[in-house]
Amino acid sequence: MKNKHYISEDYIINKYLKKLNFKKDETFDFKNDAAFFKIPKDKKLIVTNDTILESIDFFKNDSSESIANKIVTCNLSDISSMGAVPYAYTLSLCLPKTVTRNWLKKFINKLLYLQKKYKFFLIGGDLSRSKKIIVSSNFFGFVNKNRILSRDGSKINDNIWVTGNLGESSIGLKIIKNKIKINKEDKNYFLKKYYYPKHFLFGQKLVNYASSAIDISDGFYGDLDKLISSHNLGAEIDSKLIPFSNKVKKLIQKKLIKINFLLSAGDDYQLIFTASDKYSLKIKKIAKLNNVKITKVGKITQKKGIYLDNKKINFINKSFQHFF
Amino acid sequence: MKNKHYISEDYIINKYLKKLNFKKDETFDFKNDAAFFKIPKDKKLIVTNDTILESIDFFKNDSSESIANKIVTCNLSDISSMGAVPYAYTLSLCLPKTVTRNWLKKFINKLLYLQKKYKFFLIGGDLSRSKKIIVSSNFFGFVNKNRILSRDGSKINDNIWVTGNLGESSIGLKIIKNKIKINKEDKNYFLKKYYYPKHFLFGQKLVNYASSAIDISDGFYGDLDKLISSHNLGAEIDSKLIPFSNKVKKLIQKKLIKINFLLSAGDDYQLIFTASDKYSLKIKKIAKLNNVKITKVGKITQKKGIYLDNKKINFINKSFQHFF
Repeated sequence: MKNKHYISEDYIINKYLKKLNFKKDETFDFKNDAAFFKIPKDKKLIVTNDTILESIDFFKNDSSESIANKIVTCNLSDISSMGAVPYAYTLSLCLPKTVTRNWLKKFINKLLYLQKKYKFFLIGGDLSRSKKIIVSSNFFGFVNKNRILSRDGSKINDNIWVTGNLGESSIGLKIIKNKIKINKEDKNYFLKKYYYPKHFLFGQKLVNYASSAIDISDGFYGDLDKLISSHNLGAEIDSKLIPFSNKVKKLIQKKLIKINFLLSAGDDYQLIFTASDKYSLKIKKIAKLNNVKITKVGKITQKKGIYLDNKKINFINKSFQHFF
Repeated sequence: MKNKHYISEDYIINKYLKKLNFKKDETFDFKNDAAFFKIPKDKKLIVTNDTILESIDFFKNDSSESIANKIVTCNLSDISSMGAVPYAYTLSLCLPKTVTRNWLKKFINKLLYLQKKYKFFLIGGDLSRSKKIIVSSNFFGFVNKNRILSRDGSKINDNIWVTGNLGESSIGLKIIKNKIKINKEDKNYFLKKYYYPKHFLFGQKLVNYASSAIDISDGFYGDLDKLISSHNLGAEIDSKLIPFSNKVKKLIQKKLIKINFLLSAGDDYQLIFTASDKYSLKIKKIAKLNNVKITKVGKITQKKGIYLDNKKINFINKSFQHFF
């Protein structure tokens, strides 16, 4: 009779998931077949969708806090690259029946923390049993009407900017896969970057100045390519300008890691955006005000393709896992 | 080099999924990080979410047409029970890399058929690789403002109605599991009911007359219980009134199947709704006009619990897989 120790779906919903709906009218406290949206008159509602799977996007024994952080970060990063603020999300949770109270508690508490920090709530969802953990989420955000940031607005001579530092998460993944040797202190630093990527929700601050934006989920090269290839432009990047942390710089100097690897790897959830040079001062001011590190790394060019220090990059990871 | 025969994610998106967005502005033709909603001034947007998994909600070798039909039907049935009309949906598709062109073609064509029939489009989504097939979908619909049908509006003495016939899909499942012996002709009839449940989108026609509504996804008893238990009411059902097809009636007469099994089994996606008796004629007229079979099966009572022919039902399947 092992069965009686499993946690019932009703219990998961009532004890854990209902903590996340903040008792908002929109959710009917999860007692109906659907929820509704309250949309302010001057706003437009947007939607994005990301799914993460055990063995693919995270490992079986990753902490549930890290999984919660990942599903929120990858979605918030899309919300941000459209210039939106988060509003609500649905959660489709597929969990093995062996899931423990401790796993659930930590998962819910991390979601709760992020919901309070970024001001959004759980509007509804679906709970299923499965062998592996799968978390799929639709995130909803608001933009001011006609102020959607998009991928295809960049113009020749626009500056190319990135937020934060690049390549950190990918080194964490290399450590987990035993593909790089590194001292203990640095190890913990990079593992944290892999397990708990942060997002700044900076896109919404840029809507009046940026000409285009995209979040880095498939690597700097791959996502920059999406920004320029749809309207047949190119990009010239200066390797000296790329923001790497001191820890990463050391690894590059020691030839333990290559710049092109760092620029091809995903999951940093930083933002690439482009803007006319006339807005540079304004953009720097906004970044300072919001305590977000930004760096100008290159320029949009007429010549197609991505060039790093005048050398064409030919190994861009064009694959992508979503159609958002 | 077996690898080269796998279909790339880009190809799936460009060749198949883009057929489903009907080139609507809202989707940016899947070239952005999100999509947006166009909401008419007099409407409210609602959302529901259902996920179906291989080995749980369908079998590994079920046709992709049946899987497409299932994800649409279970979501449309929620949209309908809120009194809404469908508008758009997101699709999170987790597919094994061995998926074939034929599987995809049939999957997409069935979605296309249903989208045209019920007038909605694919607004975006996410594509992942996985060992098993998992399809998660958020469906969006419109209701007239302040005209949302809900689960908790029923009043004492309201009539209880159901659409269509009950229990058909569950007999199909019994056949697949070899748990019932049946002649070939009837076999195909019930298998079709299991693989291709239909939905009538009747809820939207009832918003001015019904006091509450819910779709039957967890069995007639289980879903009726949700309708009455939240406000402490009861239901009195007359077994002679329950709409069973002649084929089902024969099975009951032959004692091959029990009424209580049929009323506990899910996946018919019919609607239960309640309404004051004064609207009975009007409701019958609307049903006739829309070519939807409806049947009055009982009454809402003050006495708590569900009673079938005055006998209390004590084995209600209260489990549910969603919090929508």
